Amino acid sequence: MKIVLSINAGSSSVKISVYAVDAPRALPRQLAEAQINGLTAPPPLVDYHRGGTVVYKDKKINDISIAGEKKDGDTKIESQDDAFALLLHLLVGDKELTEISSLDDIAIVTHRIVHGGDYTAPEIVADGTYSEIEKLNDLAPLHNAKSLEIVRSCLHKLPGATNIACFDSQFHATLPPHISTYPINPAIAKSNMLRKYGFHGLSYAFITRATAEFLGKPVNKTSIIALHLGSGASACAIKDGKSWDTSMGLTPLAGLPGATRSGSVDPSLVFHYASDVGRLSPASTSDLHISRAEEILNKESGWKALTGTTNFGEIASSDKPSHQLAFDLFVDRVCGFVGSYYVTLRGQVDAVVFAGGIGERSDRLRAAVIDQCRCLGFEIDAAANGARLTDTVTDITGKEARHRVLVCRTDEQLEMAREGSENETLWKGTQGANV
Amino acid sequence: MKIVLSINAGSSSVKISVYAVDAPRALPRQLAEAQINGLTAPPPLVDYHRGGTVVYKDKKINDISIAGEKKDGDTKIESQDDAFALLLHLLVGDKELTEISSLDDIAIVTHRIVHGGDYTAPEIVADGTYSEIEKLNDLAPLHNAKSLEIVRSCLHKLPGATNIACFDSQFHATLPPHISTYPINPAIAKSNMLRKYGFHGLSYAFITRATAEFLGKPVNKTSIIALHLGSGASACAIKDGKSWDTSMGLTPLAGLPGATRSGSVDPSLVFHYASDVGRLSPASTSDLHISRAEEILNKESGWKALTGTTNFGEIASSDKPSHQLAFDLFVDRVCGFVGSYYVTLRGQVDAVVFAGGIGERSDRLRAAVIDQCRCLGFEIDAAANGARLTDTVTDITGKEARHRVLVCRTDEQLEMAREGSENETLWKGTQGANV
Repeated sequence: MKIVLSINAGSSSVKISVYAVDAPRALPRQLAEAQINGLTAPPPLVDYHRGGTVVYKDKKINDISIAGEKKDGDTKIESQDDAFALLLHLLVGDKELTEISSLDDIAIVTHRIVHGGDYTAPEIVADGTYSEIEKLNDLAPLHNAKSLEIVRSCLHKLPGATNIACFDSQFHATLPPHISTYPINPAIAKSNMLRKYGFHGLSYAFITRATAEFLGKPVNKTSIIALHLGSGASACAIKDGKSWDTSMGLTPLAGLPGATRSGSVDPSLVFHYASDVGRLSPASTSDLHISRAEEILNKESGWKALTGTTNFGEIASSDKPSHQLAFDLFVDRVCGFVGSYYVTLRGQVDAVVFAGGIGERSDRLRAAVIDQCRCLGFEIDAAANGARLTDTVTDITGKEARHRVLVCRTDEQLEMAREGSENETLWKGTQGANV
Repeated sequence: MKIVLSINAGSSSVKISVYAVDAPRALPRQLAEAQINGLTAPPPLVDYHRGGTVVYKDKKINDISIAGEKKDGDTKIESQDDAFALLLHLLVGDKELTEISSLDDIAIVTHRIVHGGDYTAPEIVADGTYSEIEKLNDLAPLHNAKSLEIVRSCLHKLPGATNIACFDSQFHATLPPHISTYPINPAIAKSNMLRKYGFHGLSYAFITRATAEFLGKPVNKTSIIALHLGSGASACAIKDGKSWDTSMGLTPLAGLPGATRSGSVDPSLVFHYASDVGRLSPASTSDLHISRAEEILNKESGWKALTGTTNFGEIASSDKPSHQLAFDLFVDRVCGFVGSYYVTLRGQVDAVVFAGGIGERSDRLRAAVIDQCRCLGFEIDAAANGARLTDTVTDITGKEARHRVLVCRTDEQLEMAREGSENETLWKGTQGANV
């Protein structure tokens, strides 16, 4: 048995899930999960549950105790790496989490890295690979840097553990060239690594396997249109278990809009939005080059810009014109991808599968999307759609449908733990590299 | 009877079509058509036909004679406006074109203007409106400026004629807000006029009317997916005769790739393509601000970048890997819009209609697109698809199809002449403005 941590650093949060894995390819059993939210909207709040027990829910730092001691409220939690350090301290200090009594008990740490460039599989992070992965910051300065700070911490703090980078792009390594190629100068595309990569791949890998299991089909005979709709949103055409097309591109900006992201807009637009958008944003550092344009389109657009809130539930239930516009706009863009992917899969579609925070929670969004896609043979059962989800996969298909409509409670953490322990090489691991 | 000229200035060509129109709303009768091609790939070549007679075909300037005199080969034809002046001289000097014996015989001149901003109908260009239209250069510096030079020439050279701007965006004034809105800061979108406008509208207006007539349906009961595929390519969902969605956006860059245009790419891409893409291109002037980014994506991408040629016929018939990739990529992107628009029209689609240079000429492209869209109920008749087109609209639908597949020989010039003479206000006109 080994203890596996899955670490997922978002733009405003860090989550650690703790699993026990009995052997390579065994199903990881979750022992605990600890999370800090609100890093960009202080005060940061802590959630922690161990087994079925909720230990903390939305607690401020000075309302929690670690290893029996009250945490000092002045503890500074400003970065993802600060949050990780506190969570790690919380886990090791929890006497009731008997499986981890010291840092040495942690055998494998999997890290969600958004942009994996040309990596097609999880990668053990060691001397050499760290700097290779660090180079990908150039492609995704807004997305990779914070996770990599945590990787570096782990290499120092957990020298006995195997650190594994799980890339959100790796699931899309199967995109065919006529779909992944941009019609631009091929020499520059090659030298600058400019192609469609796609993201949310850990989620799509989970969704694909869970859907195949639910349908009782082999993964390699399962074709679906998967919709991971959260504060970042994307769509994926999965053909015979493999990614065939997806809506995100070189970066997570392309495709669907999100909480603060524009999604696909005319590539000329940003040059008409503000002058000098090519200049570096004040958020840039000597290592990280973030243009004002990328900041505007990734951080200052989406629901937040249209409605003032990033809470899609609020948008979906409001009758304010701005909120209704945002809702209708999102339905339109999602349906566009469903139609497009239905054709690219030539109608051989087992199901449309909703997942992600919005996909799992907003029955109104699901109903609106499927209503518009009725002409493709999709239909929803209103009662099933409105009921509370309890299973990993729930069927909400209507009676007259030609294809299924499913909701999948996706779990990137579990997928990472599984990927990080699924083969002997990763299971045996190498010693952590010194960076 | 009035003589109407339709002037269409492309990026490398100028075309003038000459029509006689008997009364408002009467069908314009074409008398002649003169064109200069190759402005950006000298030497420029002249085509001219009068009625059924080909007078010149691909002739160099010094191989033609005007008003009985051999044209001096040193005549400089460097701009669209130079080309226009020569063509106008050619028409007036042609003794066999009896309807135009002097410039005074020209009553109405219609100009294709790509970006019409908020204009929803053709506009007589007079004092005041010229500068209003000139302001749109800020939104479309690559597209409007050359046409406006010709408008200005006409105001000087043809002071007795009515000059009418026909906007390629006006057909799309009916886009609903949830489709035309970008999910960005609404205050900046409003002040900077940032929304989806759409283009190729003169062609789509022609296609819609021609298709409705062919199907024997009223225009306002006709719903189609129209594909204008030429060196610039776009798609349009037309619902009850009106534009409901289209693939181009704020500018013609968005959507499908073209001869030298990337189409939609991750909006971050260009910032990873070259450094300092926000700076002005050397092609900019004090009035025209063209960023390097817009130049790269509009002028240095597309088929030209992928294959070295802008000739799609060559691409479609080649077995070179680069050409096959470009062909497959285009089919994929076109099919994506067909699927997307099928859903946005909720399956209420009378036909998919191919038009434009590629749409009308490449039976291989049509076959590949429709083959992939078979799951939507489209099918092609191979014999009809391979036959030479002689009518304005040709039906190439296969036997098992649920929806029609048509090819329309679109005619923007005729559409402009019709729009420029269709109502009493435009027919009566005002005197040309002094600019």
